[in-house]
Amino acid sequence: MMEPTALESSKESARDAALSAAPGWQWSERPPSLFRRFQFGSYGQTRQFLDRLAEQSAALGVEPQNINFGTTYVNVTISAIGPNLSESECRLAAELSRLATA
Amino acid sequence: MMEPTALESSKESARDAALSAAPGWQWSERPPSLFRRFQFGSYGQTRQFLDRLAEQSAALGVEPQNINFGTTYVNVTISAIGPNLSESECRLAAELSRLATA
Repeated sequence: MMEPTALESSKESARDAALSAAPGWQWSERPPSLFRRFQFGSYGQTRQFLDRLAEQSAALGVEPQNINFGTTYVNVTISAIGPNLSESECRLAAELSRLATA
Repeated sequence: MMEPTALESSKESARDAALSAAPGWQWSERPPSLFRRFQFGSYGQTRQFLDRLAEQSAALGVEPQNINFGTTYVNVTISAIGPNLSESECRLAAELSRLATA
């Protein structure tokens, strides 16, 4: 087996850091992104989550890159603006997980 | 040339009614749906449009089926719950067009 290169190790640690900050999210690369689907029982709950999402993203200074929602779901993609996900971007993911289970 | 069947004529008139109520939207079938992409200059404007969209859909009693947004765009799909788009669903499309140009 080949040893991972320094670049691969750095990519892996970026991914590991993002996923440990935001458990339950899926990681993808190019650009580094976190994805999660949130499911709700009613449009009212969905709406409430969307309002909290707008507040949290404003508070953290993270503009949502790609949100897709319908009556009872919200799919959130948080993509890195820079080379890696910033602390604020990972924190937004963590806050959204917290809101969804609150 | 063959004459359109009664079913085709009824489908065409449903499409024509929807598009005349909501100019600038794209029509598709199965289910009957209207689609339009709205582009904005800033996240602030995008956010404002999303808030108005939530208000209008609540006022008209139409729960959005599929909305996709990012920093400077909102893609809206309004799909018929019944066999054809209702008057409220078409009116939501018309109101959103009006908001975007206001």
